[in-house]
Amino acid sequence: MTGPSSLIQDVAHLGSVELLTPRFTDSQWYFRDVLGMEVVHAAGSSVYLRGYGDYAASTVKLTEAKAPGVGCISWRAVSPEALERRAAAIGETGLGLGWSEGDFGRGKSYRFRDPDGHLMEIYYEETKYRAPEHLKSALKNLPMKYTGRGVGVRRIDHLALLARDVAANRRFMQERLGFRLREQVIFDQGKAEIGSWLSASPVHHQVAYVKDVKGGHGRLHHFAMWVDNREDVLRAASLLSEQGVFIEAGPSMHNNSQGFYLYTYEPGGNRVEVYSGSYLVFAPDWEPVTWNEKERGTGVYWGGALPQSFLEYATPDISIGDAASTEKVPVFDPA
Amino acid sequence: MTGPSSLIQDVAHLGSVELLTPRFTDSQWYFRDVLGMEVVHAAGSSVYLRGYGDYAASTVKLTEAKAPGVGCISWRAVSPEALERRAAAIGETGLGLGWSEGDFGRGKSYRFRDPDGHLMEIYYEETKYRAPEHLKSALKNLPMKYTGRGVGVRRIDHLALLARDVAANRRFMQERLGFRLREQVIFDQGKAEIGSWLSASPVHHQVAYVKDVKGGHGRLHHFAMWVDNREDVLRAASLLSEQGVFIEAGPSMHNNSQGFYLYTYEPGGNRVEVYSGSYLVFAPDWEPVTWNEKERGTGVYWGGALPQSFLEYATPDISIGDAASTEKVPVFDPA
Amino acid sequence: MTGPSSLIQDVAHLGSVELLTPRFTDSQWYFRDVLGMEVVHAAGSSVYLRGYGDYAASTVKLTEAKAPGVGCISWRAVSPEALERRAAAIGETGLGLGWSEGDFGRGKSYRFRDPDGHLMEIYYEETKYRAPEHLKSALKNLPMKYTGRGVGVRRIDHLALLARDVAANRRFMQERLGFRLREQVIFDQGKAEIGSWLSASPVHHQVAYVKDVKGGHGRLHHFAMWVDNREDVLRAASLLSEQGVFIEAGPSMHNNSQGFYLYTYEPGGNRVEVYSGSYLVFAPDWEPVTWNEKERGTGVYWGGALPQSFLEYATPDISIGDAASTEKVPVFDPA
Amino acid sequence: MTGPSSLIQDVAHLGSVELLTPRFTDSQWYFRDVLGMEVVHAAGSSVYLRGYGDYAASTVKLTEAKAPGVGCISWRAVSPEALERRAAAIGETGLGLGWSEGDFGRGKSYRFRDPDGHLMEIYYEETKYRAPEHLKSALKNLPMKYTGRGVGVRRIDHLALLARDVAANRRFMQERLGFRLREQVIFDQGKAEIGSWLSASPVHHQVAYVKDVKGGHGRLHHFAMWVDNREDVLRAASLLSEQGVFIEAGPSMHNNSQGFYLYTYEPGGNRVEVYSGSYLVFAPDWEPVTWNEKERGTGVYWGGALPQSFLEYATPDISIGDAASTEKVPVFDPA
Repeated sequence: MTGPSSLIQDVAHLGSVELLTPRFTDSQWYFRDVLGMEVVHAAGSSVYLRGYGDYAASTVKLTEAKAPGVGCISWRAVSPEALERRAAAIGETGLGLGWSEGDFGRGKSYRFRDPDGHLMEIYYEETKYRAPEHLKSALKNLPMKYTGRGVGVRRIDHLALLARDVAANRRFMQERLGFRLREQVIFDQGKAEIGSWLSASPVHHQVAYVKDVKGGHGRLHHFAMWVDNREDVLRAASLLSEQGVFIEAGPSMHNNSQGFYLYTYEPGGNRVEVYSGSYLVFAPDWEPVTWNEKERGTGVYWGGALPQSFLEYATPDISIGDAASTEKVPVFDPA
Repeated sequence: MTGPSSLIQDVAHLGSVELLTPRFTDSQWYFRDVLGMEVVHAAGSSVYLRGYGDYAASTVKLTEAKAPGVGCISWRAVSPEALERRAAAIGETGLGLGWSEGDFGRGKSYRFRDPDGHLMEIYYEETKYRAPEHLKSALKNLPMKYTGRGVGVRRIDHLALLARDVAANRRFMQERLGFRLREQVIFDQGKAEIGSWLSASPVHHQVAYVKDVKGGHGRLHHFAMWVDNREDVLRAASLLSEQGVFIEAGPSMHNNSQGFYLYTYEPGGNRVEVYSGSYLVFAPDWEPVTWNEKERGTGVYWGGALPQSFLEYATPDISIGDAASTEKVPVFDPA
Repeated sequence: MTGPSSLIQDVAHLGSVELLTPRFTDSQWYFRDVLGMEVVHAAGSSVYLRGYGDYAASTVKLTEAKAPGVGCISWRAVSPEALERRAAAIGETGLGLGWSEGDFGRGKSYRFRDPDGHLMEIYYEETKYRAPEHLKSALKNLPMKYTGRGVGVRRIDHLALLARDVAANRRFMQERLGFRLREQVIFDQGKAEIGSWLSASPVHHQVAYVKDVKGGHGRLHHFAMWVDNREDVLRAASLLSEQGVFIEAGPSMHNNSQGFYLYTYEPGGNRVEVYSGSYLVFAPDWEPVTWNEKERGTGVYWGGALPQSFLEYATPDISIGDAASTEKVPVFDPA
Repeated sequence: MTGPSSLIQDVAHLGSVELLTPRFTDSQWYFRDVLGMEVVHAAGSSVYLRGYGDYAASTVKLTEAKAPGVGCISWRAVSPEALERRAAAIGETGLGLGWSEGDFGRGKSYRFRDPDGHLMEIYYEETKYRAPEHLKSALKNLPMKYTGRGVGVRRIDHLALLARDVAANRRFMQERLGFRLREQVIFDQGKAEIGSWLSASPVHHQVAYVKDVKGGHGRLHHFAMWVDNREDVLRAASLLSEQGVFIEAGPSMHNNSQGFYLYTYEPGGNRVEVYSGSYLVFAPDWEPVTWNEKERGTGVYWGGALPQSFLEYATPDISIGDAASTEKVPVFDPA
């Protein structure tokens, strides 16, 4: 059952994201008590967490570090063969870093950097989560009980990365990992690719690349966890406010992606989104939607304009022209 | 970028469903004014409608008929080659009916019956919807304005078919169309396959086969349109009540599929669901969830028990042992 | 600023309800961990709880007892003078029990029984809740932090009592306490008053009297806590299911009252409702809405029919003709 | 059943608001097709509309005028005697204008101006709405069918007026009409009363007075219609966006009042709010909540900051020091 022009998907989905935090204990509090995720493992200076609806053992890894930012971004392949194919395709670019033995709950992974220097890996073997007795759900098709603690995020959704050269990274994900392009923000009469949203599945986007206006490398704009309803996002806003967590923007609705967003900073400094809405892309011949300066506006369908910090702040935080980020996150510049 | 063990998907999604109705005018009122769909075309004794979020020109076809039921169920292939492959694979079973020139807005289709006799087709060429000026959305990534009329269903979602032999039809969809099995209801210590839920994409299910307790053939249990929020389903219940449309069950939540449902009968007699919730399946190695008699209960997670009619009524309506359905819907019995 | 035909309101609102429970520890778990109420005080075999939006120190009192049921139902008067006036008016009926020194956080109360024997009191002095530091809300107009624990009920709303003679109790609340009649269920061509919903404020109803089909006395049908959104009720259904708490009916919508309901049994056996929706009554010349057998149906606007237990079960639970309840709750039959 | 210290309420609720519009046809479209109100009457250069849940015949009156702004604000008394009492109390201030024969669907009214010059009236006799056959609701306790057209606002809620002297107007409503003070924004160490929220019923506020920063007279800040759920407000934002109606702020949540707001400008220029949430005030001894500069912030609990226009724009629109408003709305300055 194979042949030309099938919809071949070698990458199944975003598997997990590692977030670096200089306030390790406070960040754990944020993800566990405020977002309501479950801690499933700890090793070295890292803890592993999960949303109640994640089928994998863990989807977020928190690691103590000197500065906030994103650590390793993990993609799950659809099969052992798909893993090998992607490793080979990436290796050809010179961006490969080689095989690792795999992180908690997983088999071996192939590690690499995207052209902007973000650390990534691809793996296939994954331990499905088996809930301990006290966390078993009343629903047989739910991996874990919905405990109702805090926001109660359901599952990992997507992340947005900054890049000096959006097009180069976008092409890398398309050509080497088989991602499909969904939407783009292109300014200056089609010449400046400001942002691109891509996915390996019908989910609207699992990764976005957005222009790093400060010229940094390897930086994180935000990481998003999913909730099922817009009301959950509204409720999250009140919970975050009561807990004194900074809300940068939302709840409100983007025009591109139609995502219903709430952006906060976790104590370590990383921007975290509580996310719902958006739309699924079913068309095999989807034509990417492009937005110019006027159409894009501030990226908001309705709701207050996004603040300036949303355009400027990312982790690790740098000043314009600052070399700080290149020290913290090894940068790769493809020749 | 192809090879063994890729996640190959030849069927992209459920393209459209044709519903037969003996009350043609009233059924149009239901889909247009109550559910809020848009009429885009009429030909012969059929009208074509769409949800505001459907990318295709049309996703529901209403056809005047002596009795209610389902007409042609259309699946979109991911490419011309995928279409040819599926046609060949189906042809081998003897269930093929041959090529048609294609319905409104589409290129040629290969028509066939599933083992239970439901009429289906697969096609690739599809005219994307281009909204007339007065229906253009303020959102560039939305095919059509959200008019707010009636329930305002967003897009086609799934359908549930009755069958004498659930296993035979389930295997046909898996083996000939590449659907993946998501959940099953299996009674009698694993011996009686009562229902199976399948999908060709990460959407939980796009088709379900359920045991026809009256022994009919080619019958429809229900057809479902999607809304984005559970609140839209609650609002739909009030709108339907105000319009005097019969509500059979819900709004409430299933245990299997986790779907948030509202079942009504359109004036022609077909059961129509306003649907939200459920969950996406991302795991490439998903293990189907099975429910036995005790686990399944009445299929409800919470909310009132489903009424007896939900188990017994389908379209066309027949008495037990009645040959009526075989007269209205030509039946195919694979040898 | 007083005179004839003013809208005089001597009773401000339902102040608190005491629930009796034979499973004291489990009932505390239910109200604290599942509904998310805050324990503010304990004395003897009672604990006192509050919703995060209640302005009073406490609105629910749980008391250990041999059988479930309702203890004292407390109404707050609008002033010291109003309290005296109501005490005098009640005293005239012979139903008065005399003055008490007042329960936790309150000044003196006048205790009495309604004609069916339910224990009630009216008081004026009330200690406003002052949250300890860790429970202070970020909102200056919210008495306590919204902690997000469990269902997160906001405030006390209403209760429904069974009575042998609905009309007698309804008249008592109208004539002696100044309640206004909102809706009624009257069967048998206007001769049988099955249920009456009354309120002392624009809130639709703060008490309902419903016919005790088993002929008991002093029994409780249900007690309701308010949440702000229908989504909160849906979320409650999932939380209760995950915690193994029995859901008897809902989430769904009543026809009379337009209330959006979810009925559960707390571990002690009392029926507790998580409630939202309904409507406010602003008209000073409101005409009570009456429902006959046909109009009333099962009391549901949409959603599954209410189960038989909803009509038959109450606390304390008795068999038809059983004298048990009269032993547990001293009965008063006004001559 | 009367005496000292009863909670005496002579004003029942906000009965209706007349809005002046220079774009009469477009404003009708906005209220009828976008907000979904029902036109029930037309006379002269005015049309009368209602929300589906309003018990009165009409709650909004649109009147053609040269400039936008508020016309007559109508309060319903609780009885004929209450009407006479209020008329007398107002008459004593010299702000009375005398009796009118009453507007559509009402008996006689006593007209007056508040100290800032806004035209008001109080009346008692009110024709209850009786829906024509095609608008009868399936719910016996709902005055009119929920048609689902547009936003579907349920009922009139409140309005906010600008005033040169907030304290003078606030005292007038308290002393002459019996309103109770709920919240206040007081700057400059308690010396500058910036805003006051008042109500005659447990509804949080039915009128607000806010400082007119441009020094005008008789101007309208906004008028609000109620919807039952926050989701209705979110849905309204999409509907308004699709219809090209300007959204000034929201959907989001205020800190004072806890109101969930969405502010738009109707085509005539008046600011209209689609509103839900907030809280009811039950305490007879409510202590008004005050907010200083720091506590108040921009008046937002969460969500984007309110734009400058929210503080500066009102109808009729004037420049600072402009005498325009005093020409259009006769101004009254109490000595």
